[in-house]
Amino acid sequence: MNFDRIQAAAIRLNGRARLTPLLSSPFLDKIAGRQVWVKAECLQHTGSFKFRGGWAAVSALSDEEKSRGILAYSSGNHAQGVAYAAQKHGVAATILMPSDAPEIKIQNTRALGAEVILYDRSTQDRDALGETLKREKNLSLIKPFDDPEVIAGQGTVGLEIAQQAQVEGILEADVLVCCGGGGLTSGVALALERTAPHFTVRPVEPEGFDDVARSLETGVHQTNKAASGSICDAILTPSPGQITFPILKRLCGSGIVVTELEVLQAMALAFQRLRIVIEPGGAVSLAAALFHGNELSGAHVICVATGGNTDPATFKAALQTLD
Amino acid sequence: MNFDRIQAAAIRLNGRARLTPLLSSPFLDKIAGRQVWVKAECLQHTGSFKFRGGWAAVSALSDEEKSRGILAYSSGNHAQGVAYAAQKHGVAATILMPSDAPEIKIQNTRALGAEVILYDRSTQDRDALGETLKREKNLSLIKPFDDPEVIAGQGTVGLEIAQQAQVEGILEADVLVCCGGGGLTSGVALALERTAPHFTVRPVEPEGFDDVARSLETGVHQTNKAASGSICDAILTPSPGQITFPILKRLCGSGIVVTELEVLQAMALAFQRLRIVIEPGGAVSLAAALFHGNELSGAHVICVATGGNTDPATFKAALQTLD
Repeated sequence: MNFDRIQAAAIRLNGRARLTPLLSSPFLDKIAGRQVWVKAECLQHTGSFKFRGGWAAVSALSDEEKSRGILAYSSGNHAQGVAYAAQKHGVAATILMPSDAPEIKIQNTRALGAEVILYDRSTQDRDALGETLKREKNLSLIKPFDDPEVIAGQGTVGLEIAQQAQVEGILEADVLVCCGGGGLTSGVALALERTAPHFTVRPVEPEGFDDVARSLETGVHQTNKAASGSICDAILTPSPGQITFPILKRLCGSGIVVTELEVLQAMALAFQRLRIVIEPGGAVSLAAALFHGNELSGAHVICVATGGNTDPATFKAALQTLD
Repeated sequence: MNFDRIQAAAIRLNGRARLTPLLSSPFLDKIAGRQVWVKAECLQHTGSFKFRGGWAAVSALSDEEKSRGILAYSSGNHAQGVAYAAQKHGVAATILMPSDAPEIKIQNTRALGAEVILYDRSTQDRDALGETLKREKNLSLIKPFDDPEVIAGQGTVGLEIAQQAQVEGILEADVLVCCGGGGLTSGVALALERTAPHFTVRPVEPEGFDDVARSLETGVHQTNKAASGSICDAILTPSPGQITFPILKRLCGSGIVVTELEVLQAMALAFQRLRIVIEPGGAVSLAAALFHGNELSGAHVICVATGGNTDPATFKAALQTLD
């Protein structure tokens, strides 16, 4: 996994992924005590950065692999990103989703042309189930994060951040990335290592699911106690990936951990000040920028708002924090 | 008022206004029965296209005029756009706002450095009050729509639409614009007349405040019965402007009128499918695209989502329509 692969993915994604804006508001700067920039990947196709990795992976398949179809497993955003990328390539997609994923994500994945197979997160082994499906139908598996092409696709977010930051005159910054298995975080870190070496990537996670922060602190893979039980459903992976963790270790600063209340407040402030919809798992980065300033340094902080697929009930709960 | 003035404003706005994205979703296309494109001006600085007109007008002042300061009157978005543009130019801004404008818009305008003076919409004459203030302090008045520099600034939205539509391969389209006094609508129409002559601009208004639609139909200025009483507070102007109406008459197709329920539904679908926050007055265009397809023609419709400054209570009411 290296920088060249990200550049190659960027060429394949050119004109396919949206160049998402880098947003800001003087009101957020005031809260944070520094300049806050938000890379609005919630505005990406299918509402999250996952479309990039999906497109990068599907477009890297041979024609023969494309004709057999692809398989993915996901709590939701990877599912939609891969399903849409596959549909646009005319490739059949089978998606394995946990039965407790937000209903809207399951519906959307089906509407994007994929065959969705549901499994029970607490009683069934996703990987074993996936392996069986893959063998039966001879499908190409597109993993949610531990896949070089997926990491390369997500890394294009980093290339865009470097370009957009240059236009804004940002020379140094902490770059906060909502972190599950580390696909986006490692891709962005690799991209910025080359294109903005004075930027420091910092993974951000919700309380109770801080496996990456603890893994970085101890230097070895740590695992979360629970598999679910946070509103940040999009980033509840048990442990950093085999490919992603060495990259995170080499390139990232320490992790930041935020509370659920901070996440809801960040969602509400994004509604009010940036007029974007961020889902809980996509708002941990902004929550860290706004409410964990003592863990940051420098005049600028750049947050990746990774996704915007949230239920109305959750969004209403976030708006409640403005009262 | 002509195309050259829009081009001149575009040069002054370059790097100052955000190039807002042209968003889309296959889910919205399905509802509308054609391809729907949303120019997300709710992501503009201060949350509406009004920043463009404000910047264009302030930047066109002489140094001497700048040193004396500017005056604006507005229900909210023009106030914020002008206040921010003035602040960035180091120009003192006095803003006359109706006392029943959304509290958040009044607060924001003050926070952007302006002196806000409130008046009672039902008992006080805004124009007379403004004239007095203007004379007393020798301020330059920046009108909300009937001002060539303001129209030129708003017209830059049209220049961007033409460029972005070309990238997407859109050759013909109805361009739906949320219409109050017609500043944005006339600016966009003038810009597209030159840069995308096969596009037809269509003003969209809420029920009961369809002065522009009726004016276009009859060929003479019509006036709304009421001055307030719609959730679409941003676009409740009594009658089309003296400068804007001749342009609208020459260049626009017929107006479209939408209901409040359609507006709330459009806001909810923008939340769910585009992950953007649109205020009611900024959502009438999308409402028309989604629910008035029989009044449109062709394979593409482009909507300008003009603003995103809404109260949580109104947004919750919109989300309710998804239940």
